[in-house]
Amino acid sequence: MPPTTTDIILSSIVVADCSSLPSIDRQTSVELDKRYALGSDVCSFHSAPSKMLHDQWFRECVDAVLEEVVFKGTDRKNKVVNWKSPEELKDVIDFAVKRSPSTHENLMQHIKNVIKYSVKTGHPYFMNQLFSSVDPYGLIGQWLGDALNSSVYTYEVAPVFTVMEQFVLNEIKNLIAFNDGDGIFSPGGSIANGYAINCARFHKFPEVKQKGLHGLPRLVMFTSKDSHYSIQKLAAFEGLGSDNVYSVKTDSRGKMDTQDLEKQILEAIAEKAVPFMVSATSGTTVLGAFDPLLGIADICKKYNLWLHVDAAWGGAVMFSKKHRYLIDGIEKADSVTFNPHKMLTAPQQCSVFMTKQKEILHLCHSCNAKYLFQKDKFYDTSYDTGDKHIQCGRRADVLKFWLMWKAKGTEGLEKHVDHVFKISKNFVEKIKNRTDFRLVLPEPECTNICFWYLPKSLQNHHNSIDFDTKLHKVAPKIKERMMREGTMMITYQPLNDLPNFFRLVVQNSALNTDDMDFIIKEFVRLGENL
Amino acid sequence: MPPTTTDIILSSIVVADCSSLPSIDRQTSVELDKRYALGSDVCSFHSAPSKMLHDQWFRECVDAVLEEVVFKGTDRKNKVVNWKSPEELKDVIDFAVKRSPSTHENLMQHIKNVIKYSVKTGHPYFMNQLFSSVDPYGLIGQWLGDALNSSVYTYEVAPVFTVMEQFVLNEIKNLIAFNDGDGIFSPGGSIANGYAINCARFHKFPEVKQKGLHGLPRLVMFTSKDSHYSIQKLAAFEGLGSDNVYSVKTDSRGKMDTQDLEKQILEAIAEKAVPFMVSATSGTTVLGAFDPLLGIADICKKYNLWLHVDAAWGGAVMFSKKHRYLIDGIEKADSVTFNPHKMLTAPQQCSVFMTKQKEILHLCHSCNAKYLFQKDKFYDTSYDTGDKHIQCGRRADVLKFWLMWKAKGTEGLEKHVDHVFKISKNFVEKIKNRTDFRLVLPEPECTNICFWYLPKSLQNHHNSIDFDTKLHKVAPKIKERMMREGTMMITYQPLNDLPNFFRLVVQNSALNTDDMDFIIKEFVRLGENL
Repeated sequence: MPPTTTDIILSSIVVADCSSLPSIDRQTSVELDKRYALGSDVCSFHSAPSKMLHDQWFRECVDAVLEEVVFKGTDRKNKVVNWKSPEELKDVIDFAVKRSPSTHENLMQHIKNVIKYSVKTGHPYFMNQLFSSVDPYGLIGQWLGDALNSSVYTYEVAPVFTVMEQFVLNEIKNLIAFNDGDGIFSPGGSIANGYAINCARFHKFPEVKQKGLHGLPRLVMFTSKDSHYSIQKLAAFEGLGSDNVYSVKTDSRGKMDTQDLEKQILEAIAEKAVPFMVSATSGTTVLGAFDPLLGIADICKKYNLWLHVDAAWGGAVMFSKKHRYLIDGIEKADSVTFNPHKMLTAPQQCSVFMTKQKEILHLCHSCNAKYLFQKDKFYDTSYDTGDKHIQCGRRADVLKFWLMWKAKGTEGLEKHVDHVFKISKNFVEKIKNRTDFRLVLPEPECTNICFWYLPKSLQNHHNSIDFDTKLHKVAPKIKERMMREGTMMITYQPLNDLPNFFRLVVQNSALNTDDMDFIIKEFVRLGENL
Repeated sequence: MPPTTTDIILSSIVVADCSSLPSIDRQTSVELDKRYALGSDVCSFHSAPSKMLHDQWFRECVDAVLEEVVFKGTDRKNKVVNWKSPEELKDVIDFAVKRSPSTHENLMQHIKNVIKYSVKTGHPYFMNQLFSSVDPYGLIGQWLGDALNSSVYTYEVAPVFTVMEQFVLNEIKNLIAFNDGDGIFSPGGSIANGYAINCARFHKFPEVKQKGLHGLPRLVMFTSKDSHYSIQKLAAFEGLGSDNVYSVKTDSRGKMDTQDLEKQILEAIAEKAVPFMVSATSGTTVLGAFDPLLGIADICKKYNLWLHVDAAWGGAVMFSKKHRYLIDGIEKADSVTFNPHKMLTAPQQCSVFMTKQKEILHLCHSCNAKYLFQKDKFYDTSYDTGDKHIQCGRRADVLKFWLMWKAKGTEGLEKHVDHVFKISKNFVEKIKNRTDFRLVLPEPECTNICFWYLPKSLQNHHNSIDFDTKLHKVAPKIKERMMREGTMMITYQPLNDLPNFFRLVVQNSALNTDDMDFIIKEFVRLGENL
């Protein structure tokens, strides 16, 4: 074992201006400075007074985070957001970084300001996005992972997380009923969808890895017009071009129209292009639609196309016996994106990409860098999984999800999913017969519920010429009032020819039927006089 | 404001088997279960007993993390790693996720096991990778960011972090002396380099975004043979093909040979391919070489090529007046990758991509998804920066770095950089005249130091025929002993025709000259009898 150096040593732990730590008296602080003799901003970790200083700093901050973010930030009594415009925010927070260090007093003030003016995404009434809530196991998993500060590329550096990934990915593989395959964690669903595109084209043209797309025929992929924009974005990033993502029609419920899919495949073939992939969606971003996977799988088989399922949002139903039917056919897919950081409320980011082909992630992405993936190591280097990824350094996103899963069991995750579905149905029931609310879809399939709010001035005027124009302006106005008051956050958007409507997303299992009543009342209040 | 519901409500915070929490007596626990009447695994957050339960869980875990990871894990007296083979690890950790929940007692045991068998990357003797150490401001920034669980795509969801990014990126822009430009945070340096490739080709052929590479001439880029493997990996991912990354020779110090660069550009042109980009490196992964940016910039200007500088590792010298000269010419680049999570020891991940062209990130990546980037919002939507990214959801990686920068000031970061350079030079001085150590480069430019350790059996046998073959086997053997004893972690690799050598990386400013003596002694001890 290394010898213990008893001298005070320079630590990477640099406590700026120790003298300002409140309960270390000024004289102790000056004494410390003298002993370190390395400038007043440098302390060491393992001498007793320094450990005390550091411990105190950590405790003070953790107190603030727990009290202000985790507890007050999720309390219905408090606001979701304390709205400031960008210019106002620059006035109240001193954002500028400077040549000289801050005092600890100032630092704590900065931390408190960051908390004060940040949106409380763990608040039950933050229903603005496809993520929300604070899960205590997820959060602790995240904090532990941060402190261990690992990078999951080789077994020697990340032994625990390498094996943990294997177990969690294998369990997901079972849930989606892949009989074989492989998986990875990705920094978000967009990049996971990018992996799908790369695997699909490599599957068809393995030479693309070395030779690139130059000299290949024009490759075309298909996705519904309501699919996530990352499909287009990553197709562009990967050199395919956004025009080569053919947009397939959806039916009245927002589900991919399989007849139109086949028609477009035939058109692409007629154009001498080469179709290679369909990206179906389980839980679309706005309407929450589930594409008909079985029908799409048949078409993919017929035309020899890679079937990817973007189940980033709706994939959580794989945990629910009751709602699993929504993704029937997912077992026929070649690859799947699934984000535990969405409906299952793992902290950002936790995104999984699964493929049925055991070797393809490695074949398609490996580069065999000799400085990292040496083959003459003393352990089984098949555990060095980093080369399957396009990232090099990579956070252990598995840990938070593993801890949640361990804590609650599959049955706890199932209860969570069933609960958020139940509450969202409750909201639909409550608004469907009201004259001031109108559903975009009579029966939403997922826990996102789209609706218009009709202020008095628009009720019973559905047939007037400028109804849609007027209605289009209602949501932005209500949203502005909502943000300025900070009582809740629910997003709005247009879709196709439809005027702006709200999308409420239920994924926080703290939500109950009283909350749904509150939300309705809030709309009535905010929509007054419009 | 929303009404306070006094009923007990189902919270997203699910405490599995509350009854096992140590200091809540069994009866209280059963009482709680009855009150919730929602199964024994469900508690609420904002009733007093539930808050107590949750608070207790957080505190217990934070205690374990601080004591075991942050303090003991960084103490020289303790091991860097408690080595287990994959099979042994599966025996000592119960990795399997199950249908039913865990007790809290078991959960704490899992957490302790994760800690026990994870590599302590914050330990001063973890010198295996281009990241290490625990920074107290970085860690608190990370913890706060986790609790706020933001996603930096729109101002309304992430007001503080949106503006914070603006300030930090602007300051980095000043440090690299770009007179204008734009920047983003990326999930690691590999993907940041991928952004560079996409911007560079978009700059030359803007139609590539819609039309893809099909129909374009063969595009070729150039990087030195010692550059990071992500250049090849991302070129393949982006459809260019790894063969179209031309590998430029390096000189005896590992720096790009500009004559060879020009020769290869001319060869590509002669092949009717279209050169579009050079990726230079500031601080190569193995040798720590800085490519001659001024010379490369001249060639890029002559042939109208995009100059990208991958300064993920060496870019930290931008903070040091003394070492800044190593990146002279970076101001002539079109884009730069820089990872504060490397030499500046921000927690994983914190990676920045900068470009001199103000609009290109938006033009090249935007998709204008109407559900997220609505233009009829009530605030200035130029603050909705998410569409410049290929990610949709994205962690606020800026926060940890901003907090570190605020705490230490630019001068604290400068001290850190100067210190790690000083210590690495000290190590070089110490080994350069020893017969049992041999430097790969007589004067390393960065803080990675490459060397062979020569056991007695190889000293004075430099001219024997099988010297290199024998030497090649020494490093893996010493590394195995090092890992099994867990006293330190330093990686090895071959390079070109050179047999396996060690690469020690100094980036933890807790390291001092005594530590360098310790490391030398450890090599002598571990290399005994080889």
